[in-house]
Amino acid sequence: MNGVGGGKFITFEGGEGVGKSTQTRLLAQKLSDLNQKVQVTREPGGGEVGERIRKILKQSTGMDSLSEVLLIFAARRDHFVRLIQPWMKEGYFVICDRFYDSSLVYQGLLRGVPIADIMELKRMTVGDFEPDLTMILDLDVSASISRTKIRSSENDDYDKMDLQSHNTIRQGFRQTADIFSFRSVLINAEGSEKTVFYRVWKTFKKSLNVN
Amino acid sequence: MNGVGGGKFITFEGGEGVGKSTQTRLLAQKLSDLNQKVQVTREPGGGEVGERIRKILKQSTGMDSLSEVLLIFAARRDHFVRLIQPWMKEGYFVICDRFYDSSLVYQGLLRGVPIADIMELKRMTVGDFEPDLTMILDLDVSASISRTKIRSSENDDYDKMDLQSHNTIRQGFRQTADIFSFRSVLINAEGSEKTVFYRVWKTFKKSLNVN
Repeated sequence: MNGVGGGKFITFEGGEGVGKSTQTRLLAQKLSDLNQKVQVTREPGGGEVGERIRKILKQSTGMDSLSEVLLIFAARRDHFVRLIQPWMKEGYFVICDRFYDSSLVYQGLLRGVPIADIMELKRMTVGDFEPDLTMILDLDVSASISRTKIRSSENDDYDKMDLQSHNTIRQGFRQTADIFSFRSVLINAEGSEKTVFYRVWKTFKKSLNVN
Repeated sequence: MNGVGGGKFITFEGGEGVGKSTQTRLLAQKLSDLNQKVQVTREPGGGEVGERIRKILKQSTGMDSLSEVLLIFAARRDHFVRLIQPWMKEGYFVICDRFYDSSLVYQGLLRGVPIADIMELKRMTVGDFEPDLTMILDLDVSASISRTKIRSSENDDYDKMDLQSHNTIRQGFRQTADIFSFRSVLINAEGSEKTVFYRVWKTFKKSLNVN
Protein backbone atom coordinates (compact mmCIF):
# COMPACT_ATOMS: atom_id res chain seq x y z
CA MET A 1 0.00 0.00 0.00
CA ASN A 2 1.16 3.48 -0.84
CA GLY A 3 -0.30 5.16 2.22
CA VAL A 4 -2.07 7.90 0.26
CA GLY A 5 -5.79 7.29 -0.10
CA GLY A 6 -7.46 4.62 -2.15
CA GLY A 7 -5.70 5.07 -5.50
CA LYS A 8 -2.95 2.98 -6.97
CA PHE A 9 0.33 4.38 -8.21
CA ILE A 10 1.84 2.42 -11.10
CA THR A 11 5.16 3.31 -12.68
CA PHE A 12 6.92 2.22 -15.85
CA GLU A 13 10.70 2.24 -15.85
CA GLY A 14 13.47 1.27 -18.22
CA GLY A 15 15.93 2.80 -20.70
CA GLU A 16 15.06 4.80 -23.79
CA GLY A 17 13.25 2.98 -26.58
CA VAL A 18 11.92 0.14 -24.44
CA GLY A 19 8.31 1.23 -24.96
CA LYS A 20 7.38 2.96 -21.69
CA SER A 21 5.14 5.64 -23.16
CA THR A 22 3.39 3.15 -25.45
CA GLN A 23 2.67 0.72 -22.62
CA THR A 24 1.57 3.60 -20.37
CA ARG A 25 -0.95 4.58 -23.02
CA LEU A 26 -2.15 1.02 -23.61
CA LEU A 27 -2.63 0.35 -19.90
CA ALA A 28 -4.55 3.60 -19.44
CA GLN A 29 -6.77 2.73 -22.41
CA LYS A 30 -7.47 -0.74 -21.07
CA LEU A 31 -8.41 0.59 -17.64
CA SER A 32 -10.64 3.27 -19.18
CA ASP A 33 -12.36 0.60 -21.24
CA LEU A 34 -13.07 -1.18 -17.96
CA ASN A 35 -14.60 2.03 -16.61
CA GLN A 36 -11.78 2.65 -14.16
CA LYS A 37 -10.69 6.17 -13.15
CA VAL A 38 -7.25 6.73 -14.68
CA GLN A 39 -4.67 9.52 -14.76
CA VAL A 40 -1.60 9.36 -16.96
CA THR A 41 1.49 11.39 -16.17
CA ARG A 42 5.25 11.43 -16.54
CA GLU A 43 8.47 12.54 -14.90
CA PRO A 44 10.10 14.91 -15.10
CA GLY A 45 6.88 16.70 -15.92
CA GLY A 46 3.34 16.47 -14.71
CA GLY A 47 2.17 19.97 -13.88
CA GLU A 48 3.23 23.35 -15.19
CA VAL A 49 6.32 23.62 -12.97
CA GLY A 50 7.43 20.08 -13.89
CA GLU A 51 7.11 20.70 -17.60
CA ARG A 52 9.10 23.93 -17.32
CA ILE A 53 11.81 22.06 -15.43
CA ARG A 54 11.73 19.33 -18.09
CA LYS A 55 12.48 21.98 -20.70
CA ILE A 56 15.47 23.28 -18.76
CA LEU A 57 16.78 19.71 -18.45
CA LYS A 58 16.35 19.06 -22.17
CA GLN A 59 17.73 22.39 -23.37
CA SER A 60 20.62 23.17 -21.05
CA THR A 61 23.89 21.64 -22.05
CA GLY A 62 26.71 20.74 -19.75
CA MET A 63 24.68 20.78 -16.56
CA ASP A 64 26.34 19.07 -13.62
CA SER A 65 24.60 15.79 -12.65
CA LEU A 66 23.82 16.98 -9.12
CA SER A 67 22.11 20.16 -10.40
CA GLU A 68 20.17 17.88 -12.69
CA VAL A 69 18.99 15.57 -9.94
CA LEU A 70 18.02 18.51 -7.71
CA LEU A 71 15.91 19.92 -10.55
CA ILE A 72 14.31 16.51 -11.08
CA PHE A 73 13.44 16.19 -7.39
CA ALA A 74 12.05 19.75 -7.31
CA ALA A 75 9.78 18.74 -10.18
CA ARG A 76 8.98 15.44 -8.43
CA ARG A 77 7.99 17.18 -5.21
CA ASP A 78 5.72 19.60 -7.07
CA HIS A 79 4.21 16.73 -9.06
CA PHE A 80 3.69 14.69 -5.90
CA VAL A 81 2.06 17.42 -3.84
CA ARG A 82 -0.10 19.03 -6.50
CA LEU A 83 -1.14 16.07 -8.67
CA ILE A 84 -0.23 12.58 -7.45
CA GLN A 85 -1.43 12.93 -3.85
CA PRO A 86 -4.79 14.53 -4.78
CA TRP A 87 -5.37 11.88 -7.47
CA MET A 88 -4.55 9.10 -5.04
CA LYS A 89 -6.97 10.52 -2.51
CA GLU A 90 -9.68 10.49 -5.16
CA GLY A 91 -9.04 6.83 -5.88
CA TYR A 92 -7.48 7.03 -9.35
CA PHE A 93 -5.16 4.58 -10.99
CA VAL A 94 -2.21 6.90 -11.59
CA ILE A 95 0.13 5.63 -14.29
CA CYS A 96 3.47 7.40 -14.38
CA ASP A 97 6.18 7.16 -17.04
CA ARG A 98 9.35 7.14 -14.85
CA PHE A 99 9.70 7.86 -11.13
CA TYR A 100 12.63 7.88 -8.73
CA ASP A 101 14.16 4.60 -9.96
CA SER A 102 15.18 6.59 -13.04
CA SER A 103 17.05 9.09 -10.85
CA LEU A 104 18.94 6.23 -9.20
CA VAL A 105 19.92 4.77 -12.57
CA TYR A 106 20.63 7.88 -14.67
CA GLN A 107 22.02 10.38 -12.15
CA GLY A 108 23.27 7.76 -9.69
CA LEU A 109 24.74 4.76 -11.48
CA LEU A 110 25.38 6.42 -14.83
CA ARG A 111 26.48 9.90 -13.77
CA GLY A 112 27.94 9.34 -10.34
CA VAL A 113 25.71 11.21 -7.88
CA PRO A 114 26.02 9.29 -4.57
CA ILE A 115 23.11 6.85 -4.18
CA ALA A 116 22.83 7.89 -0.52
CA ASP A 117 22.19 11.51 -1.59
CA ILE A 118 19.51 10.44 -4.07
CA MET A 119 17.79 8.33 -1.41
CA GLU A 120 18.00 11.30 0.97
CA LEU A 121 16.29 13.50 -1.64
CA LYS A 122 13.66 10.79 -2.08
CA ARG A 123 13.01 10.81 1.66
CA MET A 124 12.76 14.62 1.76
CA THR A 125 10.36 14.87 -1.16
CA VAL A 126 8.00 11.89 -0.93
CA GLY A 127 8.83 10.32 2.46
CA ASP A 128 8.10 6.59 2.49
CA PHE A 129 5.68 6.77 -0.42
CA GLU A 130 6.36 4.01 -2.97
CA PRO A 131 4.66 2.88 -6.16
CA ASP A 132 2.16 0.03 -5.70
CA LEU A 133 3.67 -1.54 -8.79
CA THR A 134 6.71 -0.76 -10.93
CA MET A 135 6.96 -2.46 -14.30
CA ILE A 136 10.50 -2.38 -15.64
CA LEU A 137 10.58 -2.88 -19.38
CA ASP A 138 13.70 -4.83 -20.17
CA LEU A 139 15.04 -4.97 -23.69
CA ASP A 140 18.24 -6.01 -25.37
CA VAL A 141 20.39 -2.90 -25.82
CA SER A 142 20.78 -3.13 -29.61
CA ALA A 143 17.00 -3.44 -29.99
CA SER A 144 16.31 -0.39 -27.82
CA ILE A 145 18.90 1.69 -29.69
CA SER A 146 17.34 0.90 -33.06
CA ARG A 147 13.88 1.77 -31.69
CA THR A 148 15.19 5.08 -30.40
CA LYS A 149 16.77 5.89 -33.75
CA ILE A 150 13.44 5.60 -35.50
CA ARG A 151 12.12 8.54 -33.52
CA SER A 152 12.86 12.17 -34.29
CA SER A 153 11.65 13.42 -30.92
CA GLU A 154 13.30 15.20 -28.04
CA ASN A 155 15.58 12.33 -27.08
CA ASP A 156 18.73 13.64 -28.74
CA ASP A 157 20.80 13.16 -25.62
CA TYR A 158 20.02 9.52 -25.43
CA ASP A 159 20.81 8.89 -29.08
CA LYS A 160 24.29 10.14 -28.47
CA MET A 161 24.88 7.72 -25.63
CA ASP A 162 27.28 4.95 -26.36
CA LEU A 163 26.63 1.25 -26.08
CA GLN A 164 28.30 1.06 -22.71
CA SER A 165 25.97 3.68 -21.23
CA HIS A 166 22.94 1.85 -22.58
CA ASN A 167 24.25 -1.29 -20.93
CA THR A 168 24.83 0.47 -17.60
CA ILE A 169 21.26 1.73 -17.74
CA ARG A 170 19.81 -1.68 -18.53
CA GLN A 171 21.81 -3.36 -15.77
CA GLY A 172 20.91 -0.53 -13.40
CA PHE A 173 17.21 -1.06 -13.88
CA ARG A 174 17.68 -4.80 -13.38
CA GLN A 175 19.36 -3.96 -10.07
CA THR A 176 16.45 -1.74 -8.99
CA ALA A 177 14.15 -4.68 -9.76
CA ASP A 178 16.10 -6.71 -7.20
CA ILE A 179 16.44 -3.98 -4.59
CA PHE A 180 12.78 -2.98 -4.77
CA SER A 181 11.47 -6.49 -5.40
CA PHE A 182 8.49 -5.81 -3.11
CA ARG A 183 7.04 -3.53 -5.79
CA SER A 184 8.97 -4.21 -9.01
CA VAL A 185 8.48 -6.69 -11.84
CA LEU A 186 10.89 -7.06 -14.75
CA ILE A 187 9.01 -7.41 -18.01
CA ASN A 188 10.45 -8.73 -21.26
CA ALA A 189 9.92 -5.86 -23.72
CA GLU A 190 10.80 -7.81 -26.84
CA GLY A 191 8.08 -8.32 -29.45
CA SER A 192 5.19 -6.25 -30.75
CA GLU A 193 3.36 -3.63 -28.65
CA LYS A 194 0.52 -6.10 -28.32
CA THR A 195 2.76 -8.93 -27.16
CA VAL A 196 4.41 -6.72 -24.55
CA PHE A 197 1.08 -5.35 -23.41
CA TYR A 198 -0.16 -8.91 -22.88
CA ARG A 199 2.70 -9.34 -20.36
CA VAL A 200 2.03 -5.93 -18.80
CA TRP A 201 -1.64 -6.63 -18.32
CA LYS A 202 -0.99 -10.08 -16.85
CA THR A 203 1.50 -8.58 -14.39
CA PHE A 204 -0.84 -5.75 -13.53
CA LYS A 205 -3.77 -8.06 -12.80
CA LYS A 206 -1.70 -10.46 -10.76
CA SER A 207 0.05 -7.75 -8.71
CA LEU A 208 -2.99 -5.64 -7.95
CA ASN A 209 -5.59 -8.39 -7.80
CA VAL A 210 -7.69 -6.84 -10.55
CA ASN A 211 -9.93 -9.01 -12.74
CA MET B 1 39.44 30.65 3.89
CA ASN B 2 36.96 29.26 1.39
CA GLY B 3 39.16 26.44 0.10
CA VAL B 4 38.66 27.32 -3.57
CA GLY B 5 41.62 29.11 -5.10
CA GLY B 6 42.77 32.60 -4.31
CA GLY B 7 39.53 34.53 -4.69
CA LYS B 8 37.28 35.85 -1.96
CA PHE B 9 33.58 35.12 -1.77
CA ILE B 10 31.55 37.92 -0.19
CA THR B 11 27.81 37.70 0.35
CA PHE B 12 25.16 40.23 1.26
CA GLU B 13 22.13 38.98 3.17
CA GLY B 14 19.01 40.48 4.73
CA GLY B 15 15.32 40.97 4.05
CA GLU B 16 13.80 42.83 1.13
CA GLY B 17 14.40 46.58 0.95
CA VAL B 18 17.48 46.63 3.17
CA GLY B 19 19.75 47.68 0.30
CA LYS B 20 21.59 44.49 -0.70
CA SER B 21 21.73 45.14 -4.43
CA THR B 22 22.78 48.77 -3.92
CA GLN B 23 25.59 47.86 -1.52
CA THR B 24 26.66 44.99 -3.81
CA ARG B 25 27.01 47.51 -6.64
CA LEU B 26 28.81 50.09 -4.50
CA LEU B 27 31.31 47.54 -3.18
CA ALA B 28 32.01 46.25 -6.68
CA GLN B 29 32.56 49.80 -7.91
CA LYS B 30 34.93 50.59 -5.06
CA LEU B 31 36.99 47.46 -5.70
CA SER B 32 37.09 48.16 -9.43
CA ASP B 33 38.30 51.68 -8.70
CA LEU B 34 41.11 50.09 -6.70
CA ASN B 35 41.97 47.94 -9.76
CA GLN B 36 40.77 44.72 -8.15
CA LYS B 37 39.26 41.89 -10.20
CA VAL B 38 35.55 41.74 -9.32
CA GLN B 39 32.55 39.64 -10.30
CA VAL B 40 29.03 40.52 -9.21
CA THR B 41 26.32 37.89 -9.07
CA ARG B 42 23.11 36.97 -7.28
CA GLU B 43 21.03 34.02 -6.11
CA PRO B 44 18.85 32.52 -7.27
CA GLY B 45 20.42 33.39 -10.60
CA GLY B 46 23.93 33.66 -11.88
CA GLY B 47 24.13 31.71 -15.10
CA GLU B 48 21.53 30.82 -17.69
CA VAL B 49 20.10 27.89 -15.72
CA GLY B 50 19.90 29.94 -12.54
CA GLU B 51 18.09 32.81 -14.22
CA ARG B 52 15.57 30.38 -15.76
CA ILE B 53 14.98 28.86 -12.34
CA ARG B 54 14.58 32.34 -10.88
CA LYS B 55 11.81 32.97 -13.39
CA ILE B 56 9.98 29.79 -12.38
CA LEU B 57 10.26 30.83 -8.73
CA LYS B 58 8.92 34.32 -9.45
CA GLN B 59 6.11 33.26 -11.79
CA SER B 60 4.72 30.05 -10.31
CA THR B 61 2.13 30.54 -7.66
CA GLY B 62 1.33 28.15 -4.85
CA MET B 63 4.56 26.21 -5.05
CA ASP B 64 5.30 24.07 -2.01
CA SER B 65 8.24 25.40 0.04
CA LEU B 66 10.26 22.20 -0.37
CA SER B 67 9.94 22.30 -4.17
CA GLU B 68 11.07 25.89 -3.92
CA VAL B 69 14.17 25.13 -1.87
CA LEU B 70 15.11 22.22 -4.17
CA LEU B 71 14.89 24.56 -7.16
CA ILE B 72 17.00 27.13 -5.34
CA PHE B 73 19.67 24.56 -4.52
CA ALA B 74 19.66 23.25 -8.10
CA ALA B 75 20.35 26.82 -9.22
CA ARG B 76 22.95 27.21 -6.46
CA ARG B 77 24.81 24.07 -7.49
CA ASP B 78 24.88 25.18 -11.12
CA HIS B 79 26.01 28.67 -10.10
CA PHE B 80 28.71 27.24 -7.83
CA VAL B 81 30.16 24.77 -10.33
CA ARG B 82 30.01 26.88 -13.46
CA LEU B 83 30.69 30.40 -12.17
CA ILE B 84 31.72 30.76 -8.53
CA GLN B 85 34.40 28.06 -8.45
CA PRO B 86 36.07 29.14 -11.71
CA TRP B 87 36.03 32.79 -10.59
CA MET B 88 37.53 31.85 -7.23
CA LYS B 89 40.27 29.90 -8.95
CA GLU B 90 41.09 32.96 -11.03
CA GLY B 91 41.42 35.10 -7.92
CA TYR B 92 38.35 37.32 -8.23
CA PHE B 93 36.48 39.09 -5.48
CA VAL B 94 33.06 37.50 -6.04
CA ILE B 95 30.22 39.55 -4.54
CA CYS B 96 26.96 37.69 -4.31
CA ASP B 97 23.52 39.09 -3.47
CA ARG B 98 22.11 36.28 -1.24
CA PHE B 99 23.50 32.79 -0.63
CA TYR B 100 22.37 29.86 1.50
CA ASP B 101 21.60 31.93 4.62
CA SER B 102 18.56 33.17 2.67
CA SER B 103 17.37 29.58 2.18
CA LEU B 104 17.64 28.98 5.92
CA VAL B 105 15.63 32.10 6.70
CA TYR B 106 12.98 32.11 3.95
CA GLN B 107 12.32 28.41 3.29
CA GLY B 108 13.44 27.22 6.73
CA LEU B 109 12.34 29.66 9.44
CA LEU B 110 9.58 31.39 7.51
CA ARG B 111 8.11 28.52 5.50
CA GLY B 112 8.85 25.49 7.65
CA VAL B 113 11.28 23.34 5.66
CA PRO B 114 13.34 21.45 8.28
CA ILE B 115 16.65 23.24 8.91
CA ALA B 116 18.40 19.84 8.91
CA ASP B 117 17.18 19.19 5.34
CA ILE B 118 18.41 22.61 4.18
CA MET B 119 21.83 21.99 5.75
CA GLU B 120 21.89 18.56 4.08
CA LEU B 121 21.21 20.22 0.71
CA LYS B 122 23.96 22.73 1.46
CA ARG B 123 26.38 19.86 2.15
CA MET B 124 25.39 18.06 -1.07
CA THR B 125 25.74 21.10 -3.29
CA VAL B 126 28.71 23.11 -2.01
CA GLY B 127 30.28 20.81 0.61
CA ASP B 128 32.09 22.79 3.30
CA PHE B 129 32.49 25.88 1.13
CA GLU B 130 31.55 29.05 3.03
CA PRO B 131 31.67 32.75 2.22
CA ASP B 132 34.81 34.54 3.37
CA LEU B 133 32.56 37.33 4.60
CA THR B 134 28.79 37.70 4.93
CA MET B 135 27.44 41.18 5.53
CA ILE B 136 23.92 41.09 6.90
CA LEU B 137 22.11 44.36 6.33
CA ASP B 138 19.86 44.91 9.29
CA LEU B 139 17.03 47.42 9.13
CA ASP B 140 13.97 48.25 11.15
CA VAL B 141 11.01 46.45 9.59
CA SER B 142 8.87 49.51 8.92
CA ALA B 143 11.79 51.18 7.15
CA SER B 144 12.44 48.18 4.91
CA ILE B 145 8.75 47.89 4.00
CA SER B 146 8.56 51.51 2.93
CA ARG B 147 11.73 51.12 0.85
CA THR B 148 10.26 48.05 -0.85
CA LYS B 149 7.04 49.93 -1.65
CA ILE B 150 8.93 52.57 -3.58
CA ARG B 151 10.05 49.98 -6.10
CA SER B 152 7.91 48.73 -8.93
CA SER B 153 10.15 45.76 -9.64
CA GLU B 154 9.73 42.02 -9.45
CA ASN B 155 9.31 41.80 -5.70
CA ASP B 156 5.53 41.51 -5.61
CA ASP B 157 5.61 38.50 -3.33
CA TYR B 158 7.49 40.32 -0.68
CA ASP B 159 5.23 43.35 -0.78
CA LYS B 160 2.33 41.17 0.16
CA MET B 161 4.05 39.77 3.20
CA ASP B 162 2.68 40.90 6.50
CA LEU B 163 4.54 42.63 9.27
CA GLN B 164 4.98 39.40 11.21
CA SER B 165 6.74 37.72 8.29
CA HIS B 166 9.05 40.69 7.87
CA ASN B 167 9.87 40.40 11.57
CA THR B 168 10.53 36.65 11.32
CA ILE B 169 12.91 37.34 8.44
CA ARG B 170 14.78 40.08 10.28
CA GLN B 171 15.13 37.98 13.43
CA GLY B 172 16.12 34.98 11.30
CA PHE B 173 19.03 36.84 9.72
CA ARG B 174 20.11 38.05 13.15
CA GLN B 175 20.19 34.40 14.21
CA THR B 176 22.34 33.43 11.23
CA ALA B 177 24.73 36.20 12.25
CA ASP B 178 25.16 34.44 15.59
CA ILE B 179 25.32 30.89 14.24
CA PHE B 180 27.82 31.76 11.51
CA SER B 181 29.67 34.37 13.53
CA PHE B 182 33.00 33.14 12.09
CA ARG B 183 32.06 34.74 8.76
CA SER B 184 29.11 37.06 9.44
CA VAL B 185 28.86 40.69 10.43
CA LEU B 186 25.59 42.46 11.17
CA ILE B 187 25.53 45.92 9.59
CA ASN B 188 23.17 48.72 10.52
CA ALA B 189 21.40 49.52 7.23
CA GLU B 190 19.77 52.72 8.40
CA GLY B 191 20.75 55.97 6.73
CA SER B 192 21.73 56.99 3.22
CA GLU B 193 23.39 54.62 0.72
CA LYS B 194 26.63 56.45 1.38
CA THR B 195 26.36 56.14 5.14
CA VAL B 196 25.65 52.41 4.91
CA PHE B 197 28.45 51.93 2.40
CA TYR B 198 30.86 53.58 4.81
CA ARG B 199 30.01 50.81 7.32
CA VAL B 200 30.21 48.13 4.62
CA TRP B 201 33.61 49.27 3.45
CA LYS B 202 34.97 49.49 6.99
CA THR B 203 33.73 45.96 7.72
CA PHE B 204 35.11 44.67 4.45
CA LYS B 205 38.57 46.13 5.02
CA LYS B 206 38.76 44.92 8.60
CA SER B 207 37.52 41.39 7.85
CA LEU B 208 39.62 40.77 4.77
CA ASN B 209 42.68 42.82 5.74
CA VAL B 210 42.45 44.99 2.64
CA ASN B 211 43.83 48.52 2.62
